[in-house]
Order: sequence, then C-alpha cells, then structure tokens
Amino acid sequence: MNPDIQTWIEQLRSGDVRTLARAISTVENRAPGWSELLKALFPHSGKARVLGLTGPPGAGKSTLVDQLARFYRKDGRTVGIIAVDPTSPYTGGAILGDRIRMQEHFSDPGIYIRSMATRGSLGGLARTTADVTTVLDASGRDLIMIETVGVGQDEVDIVRLADVTILILVPGMGDDVQTIKAGIMEIADIFVINKSDRDGAENVEREIRTLQSLAMRHDGWTPPIVKTVASQGVGIEELAAAISDYEAYLQKENLALNKSVENWQERLIEMLRDALLEKARTQLGDGNLARLAAEVAEHKRDPYTLVEEIATKAGRS
Amino acid sequence: MNPDIQTWIEQLRSGDVRTLARAISTVENRAPGWSELLKALFPHSGKARVLGLTGPPGAGKSTLVDQLARFYRKDGRTVGIIAVDPTSPYTGGAILGDRIRMQEHFSDPGIYIRSMATRGSLGGLARTTADVTTVLDASGRDLIMIETVGVGQDEVDIVRLADVTILILVPGMGDDVQTIKAGIMEIADIFVINKSDRDGAENVEREIRTLQSLAMRHDGWTPPIVKTVASQGVGIEELAAAISDYEAYLQKENLALNKSVENWQERLIEMLRDALLEKARTQLGDGNLARLAAEVAEHKRDPYTLVEEIATKAGRS
Repeated sequence: MNPDIQTWIEQLRSGDVRTLARAISTVENRAPGWSELLKALFPHSGKARVLGLTGPPGAGKSTLVDQLARFYRKDGRTVGIIAVDPTSPYTGGAILGDRIRMQEHFSDPGIYIRSMATRGSLGGLARTTADVTTVLDASGRDLIMIETVGVGQDEVDIVRLADVTILILVPGMGDDVQTIKAGIMEIADIFVINKSDRDGAENVEREIRTLQSLAMRHDGWTPPIVKTVASQGVGIEELAAAISDYEAYLQKENLALNKSVENWQERLIEMLRDALLEKARTQLGDGNLARLAAEVAEHKRDPYTLVEEIATKAGRS
Repeated sequence: MNPDIQTWIEQLRSGDVRTLARAISTVENRAPGWSELLKALFPHSGKARVLGLTGPPGAGKSTLVDQLARFYRKDGRTVGIIAVDPTSPYTGGAILGDRIRMQEHFSDPGIYIRSMATRGSLGGLARTTADVTTVLDASGRDLIMIETVGVGQDEVDIVRLADVTILILVPGMGDDVQTIKAGIMEIADIFVINKSDRDGAENVEREIRTLQSLAMRHDGWTPPIVKTVASQGVGIEELAAAISDYEAYLQKENLALNKSVENWQERLIEMLRDALLEKARTQLGDGNLARLAAEVAEHKRDPYTLVEEIATKAGRS
C-alpha cells in the first residue's frame, strides 16, 4: 500500500479531526487517491451504527439530530453527522444553519458535522454520502447520522444505506402526508411526529396508521410513532429507545445481515453503473457528445440505436 | 424493417387511437419489439410542441392542463396529455381523477390522455415519459403536455424534455416557495399562480420575483408570471400567449436548437446510464450478485475493488 495512505489511516483511526476532514474532502471531490483511500479504509468500516433521518423542510430535523447527538454523547459515544441538503442554494439557509451548529459543538471533538449540498459530477449525492459514511465509520465513530431534507427519490437513495431509517413529520401538513412519496413511507423504520405540542399531532398519527394498515412490511416490523418536541428535548429518550428496540428486533430475527446484504445488492449495481457510465463518458468525450446530441436534435440520427452502439463498446478499451 | 412494425406505424400515423394506446403500452412496459418500434418512430417525431407542467400537490395542475387543452382544441390542434404521478400509490387519487378526466374528453378523439404512475423496472419515469412523448409526437399530435406532481429532482428530470416548462404555484404556500428545489425554479420558463383569486397571490408573486433577482438565466429570458383561476377558465388565454411569446423568443434568438441539443446531451447520458445498468445487472446475475453482496456485507471483500474488476470485464462478453 501507498505509505501516504498508510499514514492517513493511522492518523484517521487515532481520532485526528483534521485528517478526517481531509479524507472526507478527498472522497467527496474525487481528488487523487480517493479510490485507493476507500479501498484501504473499507476493512476498518462496518462497526458504526448508521441512522438515516429525513422529512419535509421545516420538520425540525437539525434540532432533533442535535438533541439525539447530545443524548448519545452523554452515553460516551462518538458521533458523526452528515447533513445532506439537495434543496435550493438560493436561500443559503442550510449552510448558515450548519455554521451555527458547528460552532455550538466546536468544543466537543466527539461530534463531527459535515454538510454536503452539491450533487457530484459522478454518481450523485447518494453515492458520495455512502462513501463519506465509510470514511466516518472507519475513523472509529460509534454512531453516524445522515440527515437529509425532503421526501423524494433522492432521499430514499440517500438514507437507504442506514441501519435504521427515521421519517420526521410535523402537525399541520394537512393532507400532505398522503402525498409523501411511497418509497419514503415504506423505508421508515420509525416515525417521529416533531413539534407534537402543536395542534394536529393526532391527525398526523392517524394518517400514518391508516397508511401503515394498507401496506405490510416484509420483515414483520411495525414502525412505532414517537412524539417529540425537539426544541425542548422532549421525547428524545423515547426516540433513542425506539431505535434500540428496532436494532434488538433486527438482531433477534437475524435480519441485520439480510438488510445489509439487500442494501449492498442495490449499491453494487449502482456503483457498477456509475463506473460504466464514467467509462462511457470518457469514451464519448465532451466534444463528441455535443456533436452526437446535435445530430439527434436535428433528427439525423436515432438515439436508441446510438446508445445501443455506445453501450456495447463501453468496457472494451 | 419488420412488416408488423411498418403496419403499426401506418395505423399510428393515420390517427388510430387504439393503435396509439397499444404502442404506448409496448414502450411503457418494454414489451417485445419496444426498441425496434422506437427506432422506427423516431424519424417521424420532432414536429410536436412539448409543454411540461409541474407544481406542488393541490396546485390545480390537472384543471389547468384541461383548460389549456380545450383552448388549443378550439384552435383545431390535436393534443396528447401525459399525466405523471410519482407520488404515493396508497391514495389512488391520480388514477381515479384521471378516469373522470378521460370520460369528460371521451367524445373528442383530438385529446388523448395517458397516466403513468409507476417507475418501470428499467430506467425511471423520466425515460419512460420521454419515450411515450416520442410515440405521441410520431403519431402526429400537434401538442403534447406532460403534467407531473411535485417539485423535486424527479420532476426536473421529467419536464426537462419539454420545449416550454411551466411551474404552477398557488397562494398560501407560506415560505414554501423558498423550499422549492433549486432545479425546478431554474427550469421554469413561465410561472403560473393558479387560484389567484385567493389571498396571498401577491406574496407568491413577490417571492418569485425575489428568487428571480438572485439568479440570471443564461438565455436572457425573464420568465413571466401569469395569474390564473383555472376552474373558471380565467387567465388561460394569457397563459397561451405567454407560451407563444417564449417560443417566439427562442426562434428569434436562435435558441430552440441549442436548447434541444442541451436536452439531448443530458438524455443521451441518461439513456446510456440506463443501458449500462441493464448490462451491469446482467453481468452480475441475481445469484452471483447476492453472493458478492453478502461477502461485502460481511466485510470479506471491498466493494470498490470488486466494482472496478467487474467494470473492466464489462463489454468483453
């Protein structure tokens, strides 16, 4: 192995936060050595518990994640937080909010927060999040929380790699629980109704129960509904207990490994697709792609035959 | 060419609605012959104008699309509507609503409505929508409207193939305009404030203007804001005029082809990614994939090296 990488890994595993930040940047930006680094780190990963938390904007996810992090810190566990925000760069809210959060935890090296907002050129946010999780895991963090805004396919892809997925809702969504995309409802292992001191918490609970009654989970688990008021620390202990319950259930039913194998089946296919796409892009080159796109746009060439031809060539060189 | 396909195409282009429905199903379900059919249809496509309409649930998109379709029908133009609903299959609302709509227009073969709600096994909704658009276009429809619920990446991908993209908002969204994902704000060529007789229409308009002032479009177009009350037919003519204005602008500035070339660059990459995914799946094979995923899940094998090895082999077979 490259001796530089060996040194990196030693510093990383000794808990050095600066090295951790550099390793994450390397992986996130696909900087030289990223692939070798991930290969070397992978054998050290697999020990952290990974929590995925998602929900619509304004549900209070960051506050809830912070409270949960504090709770686990009191228990002596080290925490890594990946805050993924695929929403508008117009507002800048995520970045500003994140700065404030980082300052607040600055005195505690046991909490490391990293925010990611941009879709990488290769592979997308889901893949980058997965890779950053591997780095945090290998660095020895006990617990990793992946927090993402939204209720669409992006978020399903991002939180899929978590051991436990938590969907955070709030009262006052009206019929909007109905419009939450199916994929998200299905992957939630635990529901949280945050800001549950507001009017309408019972309505949200009823809606979740109705949706649950329409769809059976194949693992036999019935996701509990935990009510919280994160800003006041209410319900955090109950949420941590619900997380433990689910993990115990997975252990008891021997489902933990199954779930991980299922996740890896999806991830391997996605990683392979991305690797092949990268290869195809290289083969096409930017100028060539523009020329081909122009020919298709002018209807001189049919795109279906074209793509078949390129796909057949990909991988040969 | 396969003589069956030749017959199909002749019937399709003669305006036969039953053949149209069958061709769309073939493409949507990737039934035998789908690829050959698309290749044969592509040279006949490229004449229809494609409008993409999206917005949050409850914005009144279907009503607006119906009114717009009526408007264009009075003008003698034939219309195809693709209603894409990537939201929850729990509710079934989309399908019910669609039945009612189809009955209403049943007497007029000049309006063809097709609803799509499920993500296909291969490629996503965006690709299927694009392929169905090609079929409708080749069948000789003058105008195709793609209508989709939501404001996320899914919707950006779906409406990207439109010549004109219309984002429909409603009063009473509060600060939610801020949380609409950036991609959607950027692709909107025209903003509609529907239900504009309600309180708060001015607020929505002000918010759009603020967001617009923060981001310049690279084509120099300033998306107009059209106020409608679709249920009463108010503002439909103004919307149609705004659509014409934008099309005239694209023509005048010679931007129409550029836009199409840009769209095709993205689409070719996506089509290639889907084709390569198929290849990756085939290469991994189901049994083999399960075994490899288990080895990775148990940390006996690192996924990064594994994917590299498979990608190198890809295409050789």
